[in-house]
Amino acid sequence: MSRAYNFSPGPAMLPESVLLQARDTMLEYGDAGASIVEISHRGPEFIEIAAQAEADLRALLSIPAEYAVLFLPGGATTQQALLPLNFADPGQRADYVLTGHWGATATRQARPYVDLNVAASSEDDGYRSIPPVESWRLSDGAAYVHVTANETIHGVEFRPAAPGGHAFPDTGDVPLFADFSSSIASEPIDVSRFGAIYAGAQKNLGPVGIGVVIVRRDLLERAGQPRADIFDYRLQLAADSMLNTPPTWNWYVAGLTFRWMLEEGGVEEFARRSDEKAKLLYAAIDGSGGWYRNEVDPAVRSRMNVPFFLPDPALDAPFLAEAREAGLVGLKGHRVVGGMRASIYNPMPLAGVQALVDHMRDFQRRHG
Amino acid sequence: MSRAYNFSPGPAMLPESVLLQARDTMLEYGDAGASIVEISHRGPEFIEIAAQAEADLRALLSIPAEYAVLFLPGGATTQQALLPLNFADPGQRADYVLTGHWGATATRQARPYVDLNVAASSEDDGYRSIPPVESWRLSDGAAYVHVTANETIHGVEFRPAAPGGHAFPDTGDVPLFADFSSSIASEPIDVSRFGAIYAGAQKNLGPVGIGVVIVRRDLLERAGQPRADIFDYRLQLAADSMLNTPPTWNWYVAGLTFRWMLEEGGVEEFARRSDEKAKLLYAAIDGSGGWYRNEVDPAVRSRMNVPFFLPDPALDAPFLAEAREAGLVGLKGHRVVGGMRASIYNPMPLAGVQALVDHMRDFQRRHG
Repeated sequence: MSRAYNFSPGPAMLPESVLLQARDTMLEYGDAGASIVEISHRGPEFIEIAAQAEADLRALLSIPAEYAVLFLPGGATTQQALLPLNFADPGQRADYVLTGHWGATATRQARPYVDLNVAASSEDDGYRSIPPVESWRLSDGAAYVHVTANETIHGVEFRPAAPGGHAFPDTGDVPLFADFSSSIASEPIDVSRFGAIYAGAQKNLGPVGIGVVIVRRDLLERAGQPRADIFDYRLQLAADSMLNTPPTWNWYVAGLTFRWMLEEGGVEEFARRSDEKAKLLYAAIDGSGGWYRNEVDPAVRSRMNVPFFLPDPALDAPFLAEAREAGLVGLKGHRVVGGMRASIYNPMPLAGVQALVDHMRDFQRRHG
Repeated sequence: MSRAYNFSPGPAMLPESVLLQARDTMLEYGDAGASIVEISHRGPEFIEIAAQAEADLRALLSIPAEYAVLFLPGGATTQQALLPLNFADPGQRADYVLTGHWGATATRQARPYVDLNVAASSEDDGYRSIPPVESWRLSDGAAYVHVTANETIHGVEFRPAAPGGHAFPDTGDVPLFADFSSSIASEPIDVSRFGAIYAGAQKNLGPVGIGVVIVRRDLLERAGQPRADIFDYRLQLAADSMLNTPPTWNWYVAGLTFRWMLEEGGVEEFARRSDEKAKLLYAAIDGSGGWYRNEVDPAVRSRMNVPFFLPDPALDAPFLAEAREAGLVGLKGHRVVGGMRASIYNPMPLAGVQALVDHMRDFQRRHG
């Protein structure tokens, strides 16, 4: 088949113009005599790529100067382990708010290192909502409060800017740490509200194999816990995220994607597109007379990941097969939730969502 | 310029046929409707790629069934932290043998977790030799003994197969762990001699951004230390190295490189080629009447990384500039050692080393 509309949750669709640049530099990058994937991270070509990527990410997300930016391998899950190691005393209290699968995953990375308090959880609700901030049981003297800005599997999102949406809490002197893996760069965020923001790149930011950590510099003065050099954010910052050999090619393609987002109009434009895409898809689900179902509290429905169910799981396989025939791939839901899921990150055009909605209506007409 | 002979130490030269396959699949992989870098690691296309890569690596290195293979992000340095976390009790003794910069780096990752004993070191010798095994002060009851099979910066290599070369020691019931980052797959090794072998891929194995760990399965029964799930080799093995989203594209290109090595004749053939390339280059250095110098004990000179010095550091810049004119890049020595370094991994053809030797003779003739 030719290139499809790819609704994969991550690794996910990349802009074709980014892929074309990656393709055209696969044997030679500029005057280097070799591909980016073959040359030293200490050489002039890659140093320039890395610096430009950071400058573009800072511009894209309006990152204040008092925040450091790290580019690191291992994905968001690795950062979930490194955050307590760097910012909590051994056994210090840390508060976690669980609104889906990934918040729970974060606790499994942190529990060996902190006195972990689940300050709030919507698990009893099947992770279909966000507990009201008034109900959160936050701890005095916690090292930090951890939230998941958007739950990729359950399709639940903090929506600080939306009417009726769920805001991030004011945690006072306790820094707020947020996993923004699946919603970063999809709308403007006030970075200064957070102690640390982290994200795997493979959804809204670029390719799989690299992630970013945006951290308030004063927090780096915390002692943290005994740890290997390679787990130390301070040492990584001092080494410009090159304490060891970084995933250079992935960093390069992330930088191409940052540049593409800036050229397309920045996060304000992607916020507009995301709202438009999400509204179109949720309207199709809600307008199906209950044939398609999304069960998330409408106030916190994700703009990025839209899980939905057909009336009978026996219809899932034909829905996916016929979607594929229509040039739509990556729609199978996560095994934890089942059903379908459409991930509609920044590179997904409105036309892709329109094609999905058309397929949904057509499928319902034939099988409903 | 067109593609050069690229002597970079890692990231390093890849076979052109591998790069061509990576290029040709950058927009679409087979019938997936998307690039490898865009599709799920849980989908059928990537599951097949991952399984084939492991099967090919097992064939290439003759890995016995009682050894597990992990594909992990973060490079060798991350494994240097994970080895003590997985295989040593908290504060247990562990023996390290230092024969260069990377052995010393390994101690900085392990020291927070073990009672670290430097059992032997050639630091006083400027890391130009390997201390004789009889002089190693190994500990009773150590969790493991750690060595660096080939020191990428200092150009010092254990040469178990070479006449007069330095063998790996017999450590009895204490498992031997070896960093094989820069020499893996360059000659046959007896995996059963080791408790664990690890390597970043970006030298002999494939692209930057992924590494491999080959570990004797019975060692995975050790309790190790409290650690995040993501740092747990057992959980990674149970999840087929996909506890979280792995660096799929890098894994794919590593698999292409394994396949290329098998098709070229396997590690026996690369051992033959490596010997031929190294002999040619060392002969040029040694035959220069002392104009070029390599200061490593000849019995443990690396076949992979050949550091050498010109008579005057003022000649370094013109040597590099003229090398570039001749289509030879990546020759600048590491800042720790200075001078020049030629890294001649598996993808470097004999013709590339011949071109370097020709340049060296020509440069000496004009500047000597």
